[in-house]
Amino acid sequence: MSLIVQKFGGSSVADAESIKRVAKRIVATRQAGNDVVVAVSAMGDTTDELLDLAYQVSPLPDPRELDMLMSSGERISVSLLAMAIRSMGHDATSLTGPQAGMRTDSHYGAARIVDVTPTRIRAALDGGSIVIVAGFQGLSADTEDITTLGRGGSDTTAVALAAALDADVCEIYTDVDGIFTSDPRVVPKAQKIDRVTSEEMLELAAHGAKVLYIRAVEFARRHGVTLHVRSSFNNSEGTLVYNPKEGEEVEQPIVTGVATDLSEAKVTVVGVPDVPGKAAQIFTLIAKTEANVDMIVQNVSAAATGLTDISFTLPKSEAQQVLTVLRAEKDAIGFQTLQHDDQIGKLALVGAGMKANTGVSAKLFDALHRASINIEMISTSEIRISVVTRADTVHEAARVIHTAFGLDGTEDAVVHAGTGR
Amino acid sequence: MSLIVQKFGGSSVADAESIKRVAKRIVATRQAGNDVVVAVSAMGDTTDELLDLAYQVSPLPDPRELDMLMSSGERISVSLLAMAIRSMGHDATSLTGPQAGMRTDSHYGAARIVDVTPTRIRAALDGGSIVIVAGFQGLSADTEDITTLGRGGSDTTAVALAAALDADVCEIYTDVDGIFTSDPRVVPKAQKIDRVTSEEMLELAAHGAKVLYIRAVEFARRHGVTLHVRSSFNNSEGTLVYNPKEGEEVEQPIVTGVATDLSEAKVTVVGVPDVPGKAAQIFTLIAKTEANVDMIVQNVSAAATGLTDISFTLPKSEAQQVLTVLRAEKDAIGFQTLQHDDQIGKLALVGAGMKANTGVSAKLFDALHRASINIEMISTSEIRISVVTRADTVHEAARVIHTAFGLDGTEDAVVHAGTGR
Repeated sequence: MSLIVQKFGGSSVADAESIKRVAKRIVATRQAGNDVVVAVSAMGDTTDELLDLAYQVSPLPDPRELDMLMSSGERISVSLLAMAIRSMGHDATSLTGPQAGMRTDSHYGAARIVDVTPTRIRAALDGGSIVIVAGFQGLSADTEDITTLGRGGSDTTAVALAAALDADVCEIYTDVDGIFTSDPRVVPKAQKIDRVTSEEMLELAAHGAKVLYIRAVEFARRHGVTLHVRSSFNNSEGTLVYNPKEGEEVEQPIVTGVATDLSEAKVTVVGVPDVPGKAAQIFTLIAKTEANVDMIVQNVSAAATGLTDISFTLPKSEAQQVLTVLRAEKDAIGFQTLQHDDQIGKLALVGAGMKANTGVSAKLFDALHRASINIEMISTSEIRISVVTRADTVHEAARVIHTAFGLDGTEDAVVHAGTGR
Repeated sequence: MSLIVQKFGGSSVADAESIKRVAKRIVATRQAGNDVVVAVSAMGDTTDELLDLAYQVSPLPDPRELDMLMSSGERISVSLLAMAIRSMGHDATSLTGPQAGMRTDSHYGAARIVDVTPTRIRAALDGGSIVIVAGFQGLSADTEDITTLGRGGSDTTAVALAAALDADVCEIYTDVDGIFTSDPRVVPKAQKIDRVTSEEMLELAAHGAKVLYIRAVEFARRHGVTLHVRSSFNNSEGTLVYNPKEGEEVEQPIVTGVATDLSEAKVTVVGVPDVPGKAAQIFTLIAKTEANVDMIVQNVSAAATGLTDISFTLPKSEAQQVLTVLRAEKDAIGFQTLQHDDQIGKLALVGAGMKANTGVSAKLFDALHRASINIEMISTSEIRISVVTRADTVHEAARVIHTAFGLDGTEDAVVHAGTGR
């Protein structure tokens, strides 16, 4: 008998009909002879509605109280799902995050899982029950208060449960058919990928692929959990995100996918004295704002001036705070001016096979050159090449590269109406 | 420094504006130098909306899962209320029923409180915080599952907290100004009562007065908790429900109030053999249905036939089940027929002073006689006289008796638009 963990997001349990459809899916898995543990998000718009209420009573809601509030959403979805399964004649037990043994730190709103003690889950499974766990939440090990895990919290809950229970697979149900070589809304000829390594998935997620949260993929990779991304709307096979054993890499395709991202801005610190320690000074300052700096590029200094420019990208929403902090320290750092550019696009070409192949960069630069697309920044890892272009050329860049690397399918991909979350 | 427990019902926290108004009230109590613990119900229609969802996914929702679902409502109201208070500059901490130490049995949907261990409440109070507790819910001592307390659960939570914390008073906020000598919608000249004993309150609540739940009053009486019923919409003084010391009764008025109730039906078992054990046989059967039988009257048997009639009243909604059970045992009991009458009205005249006064019954019967109102059943306790009349005469009966016992005020009472819950 296998143990399967399944995760259903908010759009999969948006109303009573959706909940009944998800219940059928869970029961089918059970009837196929598996033990089943399910992590569920809050129903559809619940989270937004609760947040709206919070801001109606308080301009700056207390974080602890906000977590108490938000955690109510998953209690609603788990109990309804358990009821629906029971009405189909199968035993089901809902558990809150705390009851499921999810222990976290006390960072309200973005708590980290510190321990999972699935005693009650195991007992319920042993009793023949399907177990429905509230995603996104836990109990602070220090304060015994309810915490929420923040963005991607339900994916992370599912992966953490799969790791703690040593599950055979963690199925992430979503409103798309799986992971694609690129976003089908950007690249119509994008194809569904059957298998991708967690390392590649991490790079794709970090550079704009929205289907899986980077945090959940990281957790899965670290704990050796196999993810299976599937559609909750049909029975197609989806995408397996696996952890290859040593030596398995040779069989991998050179490139796996192209991700694009329009959510970042570029900041350039112009005229920084080219002396040791300046970069450290700048990024130590920025780290204090908790901004998520992504690409960093430092130009060679012009020998005549002894000055250099340092550029970096970060989420648009975090740019203003970073600019403010840097401006305040202008004299201490000794730079000349700050430039802020929120019209950039980021593109990442990812493939585990790159490790063993040369010429990938050249082929990419050539494809962009022939399409007259200008490259503004370049950054690479072992299995990824990222470039920054103008915002209005990045989608065309993705199509050109998708074709150049032979990723195009024979027909256009079907784009679902869903949100892609 | 006093410790005050306050309870606010669903209509008092129906939306963001109401929550802010309640927050002001709580802060004012705090600023007057009191420690404050608050029990809150779910917002307005939340309970009905959640129930509606449950029946959409399951024709017969599992009781455990239903309690998991329903308990989410109070998490929303407590966290929002705590946020609102914090935004006014006062420390506030919300606690779920389980966190507040409310331990119950495992009777889902109508759990009984078995123990209150307010460790976290005391710690929060000692830290200078106002404490907001989710009403209506607890944790099963056996199964560690969430339970709900059923009807009047939030009132009961407040009283149980007041008892466990040895609070000076338990303030029950409602949408009326207090306890009245009769329902002002029935008896326009009804007056607000300043003080009433918990014994009298129990009789009034048991016979149709809707402001307080009988269960909460019973709990308060048993644990010596003083209740203060007040309006959440104004600052009028309300009604004190107190537990008199020995000998205090002499000062009490003879009659305190008149309650009416149109929610009951009368069942008559006709032609029961007048031999010992028949009544026991009948009511043992009925007890198995958990019906709430109220008044029971057995007529003297006609000597010639050796048969008697037994009548009793019970909630209309429970009548059919009881009739079915009795009908199935017709031969075993040996009665002739069953009569079912759902057009009755019940009236109760209550007053602690009745103990020491004779002639109260005679005065009541005389008043009804002069108004040509027929009495169908009579039942009495030490501090109450109840009669059953036709449904369409019971309100007129209440007005006549209210006048006869000198309870009329000089002007009509103000009737609020609220539900009276």
